[in-house]
Amino acid sequence: MNGADLLMQTLLANGVDLVIGNPGTSEMQFVAALDGAPKLRSVLGLFEGVVTGAADGYGRMADRPAATLLHLGPGLGNGLANLHNARRAHTPIVNVVGEHATFHRQYDPPLHSDIASIAKGASEWTRAMSAESLSGDVAAAVGFAREAPGHVTTLILPADVAWSPAIGDPQKATIGKPRSVPASVIDEVAQVLRRGEPAALLLNGRGVREPALGLASRIAKRAGARLVCDTFPARIERGAGRPVVERLPYIPHMILSALGDVKHLILVAARAPVAFFAFPGGGQSIAVPEGCQVHTLATESDDVVSALEALASALGASADKQLQASGLSPVPTGGSIAPDSFAAALGATLPEGAIVADEGNTVGYLAPLATAGCPPHDWLCLTGGSIGFGLPAATGAALACPDRRVIALDGDGSAMYTIQALWTQAREKLNVTNVILSNRSYAILNLEMMRMGLGQAGPVAKTMLDLNNPALDFVALGKGMGVPSTKVSRADELVVALRRSYLTEGPTLIEVEIET
Amino acid sequence: MNGADLLMQTLLANGVDLVIGNPGTSEMQFVAALDGAPKLRSVLGLFEGVVTGAADGYGRMADRPAATLLHLGPGLGNGLANLHNARRAHTPIVNVVGEHATFHRQYDPPLHSDIASIAKGASEWTRAMSAESLSGDVAAAVGFAREAPGHVTTLILPADVAWSPAIGDPQKATIGKPRSVPASVIDEVAQVLRRGEPAALLLNGRGVREPALGLASRIAKRAGARLVCDTFPARIERGAGRPVVERLPYIPHMILSALGDVKHLILVAARAPVAFFAFPGGGQSIAVPEGCQVHTLATESDDVVSALEALASALGASADKQLQASGLSPVPTGGSIAPDSFAAALGATLPEGAIVADEGNTVGYLAPLATAGCPPHDWLCLTGGSIGFGLPAATGAALACPDRRVIALDGDGSAMYTIQALWTQAREKLNVTNVILSNRSYAILNLEMMRMGLGQAGPVAKTMLDLNNPALDFVALGKGMGVPSTKVSRADELVVALRRSYLTEGPTLIEVEIET
Repeated sequence: MNGADLLMQTLLANGVDLVIGNPGTSEMQFVAALDGAPKLRSVLGLFEGVVTGAADGYGRMADRPAATLLHLGPGLGNGLANLHNARRAHTPIVNVVGEHATFHRQYDPPLHSDIASIAKGASEWTRAMSAESLSGDVAAAVGFAREAPGHVTTLILPADVAWSPAIGDPQKATIGKPRSVPASVIDEVAQVLRRGEPAALLLNGRGVREPALGLASRIAKRAGARLVCDTFPARIERGAGRPVVERLPYIPHMILSALGDVKHLILVAARAPVAFFAFPGGGQSIAVPEGCQVHTLATESDDVVSALEALASALGASADKQLQASGLSPVPTGGSIAPDSFAAALGATLPEGAIVADEGNTVGYLAPLATAGCPPHDWLCLTGGSIGFGLPAATGAALACPDRRVIALDGDGSAMYTIQALWTQAREKLNVTNVILSNRSYAILNLEMMRMGLGQAGPVAKTMLDLNNPALDFVALGKGMGVPSTKVSRADELVVALRRSYLTEGPTLIEVEIET
Repeated sequence: MNGADLLMQTLLANGVDLVIGNPGTSEMQFVAALDGAPKLRSVLGLFEGVVTGAADGYGRMADRPAATLLHLGPGLGNGLANLHNARRAHTPIVNVVGEHATFHRQYDPPLHSDIASIAKGASEWTRAMSAESLSGDVAAAVGFAREAPGHVTTLILPADVAWSPAIGDPQKATIGKPRSVPASVIDEVAQVLRRGEPAALLLNGRGVREPALGLASRIAKRAGARLVCDTFPARIERGAGRPVVERLPYIPHMILSALGDVKHLILVAARAPVAFFAFPGGGQSIAVPEGCQVHTLATESDDVVSALEALASALGASADKQLQASGLSPVPTGGSIAPDSFAAALGATLPEGAIVADEGNTVGYLAPLATAGCPPHDWLCLTGGSIGFGLPAATGAALACPDRRVIALDGDGSAMYTIQALWTQAREKLNVTNVILSNRSYAILNLEMMRMGLGQAGPVAKTMLDLNNPALDFVALGKGMGVPSTKVSRADELVVALRRSYLTEGPTLIEVEIET
């Protein structure tokens, strides 16, 4: 057994049984060792952004980390954008980044760079392994990755540590328990809610998943408070039979308007709303209405469920679940596809147990509303604003949940950052419906330009936001990577194409031509 | 005039007239300002690895920096792999990375990350701009980017600095002069060469370009020394009428064998050969034969041309150019395509003034030899080992040299990292022939696994190196991004396809099915 073997045995001993990778020479020991660890599934990505995005989607659905395998600093760099989203989502991930042999680094070979510095851009814990500490290092990485609320961790694996004889046996990870919320905090929040002043529970993280969601809903009903959640939760459980939660809008003044006259904002594994971007004039960095007090029931690192149980008990909130299922959308019958008819088509068809990886941006913004009453499903959001999330995250969610239908909602611009994910879906025969909302522009940026007070883009600026020249042909791109693909331009065609994809094993791509 | 305007005016005042970008909201001021700076050409990439790779190709051919425009930490992360290659190539590049407004960062908005730490992975100079220092910061970045041997620099542009009123006028960059090599060093090297012991001049950087190349050739002839160059020079000028330079092989023991009984290795803007990777057993990190003395005539930061002139004068090397043009390859007449017949097809067709961006790896390794006698051309190599270089670098070279034919040599695996470059080529109607050498595997890694002493890959390991399931269809991928594409499987078809592409305006893709 060498270091690479011990690394794998330690991952397996701690519940990590999937490695998603894009290896190079420095990782060959690891790749060779895969044959000695048949319980460790290995999946190949053609680009590291696919690898890390898939690890994010997997971790959100599996609630345990996948390992990634990345090739030195450049491989980590390629994976950084989706690790950024994963960090913001508190997704557990254990990156394994190959590195030059320790004795070789001093010669500054061509692929040498400062891996630890790059890792600081997205990883919350980074350690270079040595032969002596290897198994302990791996156990520590898995332990911290799994500690509430979940973390991105990075192990740097020098080639000579991988090929040297293993020292010691696989060690078990110690996973820190979530912090308990003190009774005094529960009491304070209970008192606030008893006052009957306008209040809202702001949920995020574990707060938008069962059992926390049901508890929060009971509390809100009992206290007459509103139930809202962050603009971009990592994974929200929703649909028929589950509490409906108002999602905060994206634009700060709309958040302020949505929170209206709320006097008490109770944070449940959430942070007070912060504007995604600042704009000239400023003043809206924190989007909390004036006169609204913010109270923290539980941070993202706390034991959210126990805190909600205690608060429900303190308030005497009944055990009746607050069911708020909306009805299903009517099936759209034809006509061109715009945000509303797209949302209706999705709402009319979303199957039970679906997982939606949402990077739909400007076209997809009505989809959450139209699907609120659909059969129970999960919705994964773009937590960190780093584009190229949708297709890889869908890939990872499908690896975690092979029996569920995964739907990637992606803009045409967004899809192009990590389009290589389609190949991994085809290779692994993953049940993903890739919906590409094609409006031939970075539409969000036209909007942002106006929000910046810059008015309509001038002719030169416009070319930097426009994707029409040449038009992208996603049916050809899908075919090029082995994914059956089709294009629709009418809402009724979209309904048929979606339904057909749900009944088809393996991945499908649907290019949706949006009316512009 | 606001900060973004001043930034552009300062770039233009210092000879930077191309910005290649993939902008987001935090860069909207910059994008809007493009309409006020019509002399600054702007080119859009769908993915940041395309942007930075194109800036690398551009800088290598234009000998001055392009600016990139990248969206915060994740955008920089996506661009890092090709910036790594650019750093190793000493390509001048000025990155402009948008950042949150200074007053907004404290709230840790979703897209916030440690940009400076990520930049340390590939940028040699990084500065966050302030409104007061903006023009000076830009001038300093361009100045250092252009200082010998060329550098990757990064300007972090907070949104509020971009939108605030400009302070001051565009400042001029001070570009540090290359260091002069002391006469004592010239004398020492001249004495070594006069001894008549077996010697070789090892060239890199400016040393493999005119006028240094001709000078080095005269010196070598006079001294009876060999003329060799680094395994992966950033840009080598070669072809008929130019001195033939022996390129060092990739594998360390082959380097040792190639240098054979060389007793004196004279470094000319080169470093002593270092193994790309270390292998079990070690001992070959530095690939210099035992008993060979290494002498530095000029480092990469020195005035290489003056040093060579002085050395030529000291040795009385005549002004006759040493012409060593080889003959042209015979045109292959048919049969399946393997490394030899591929190289022959390229050698039989390469047009005058061609620029080859070479990421051909395992299939392309014979191409340099077969093209040595072709009409004069430039050859750009993968300096940093970071895959995904070929298509973007070709894109940038074509932006720098619109009247020349650019040929990207890429493996199928390599091409998939930054396949989005095709779209920019189509959009800008660039004269690029994209040759995709498709052998349906990461063939280099099968080789490296054997070099690691791991033998043939086992069945699981093999799946991590194999690209056959599903097969990539590059004709479909090219079509999907608006590039006319064709597939060939015979050498005579390849010759026809290459020649046709050279006569066709705009980009072409040729998928070359390699016999395996």
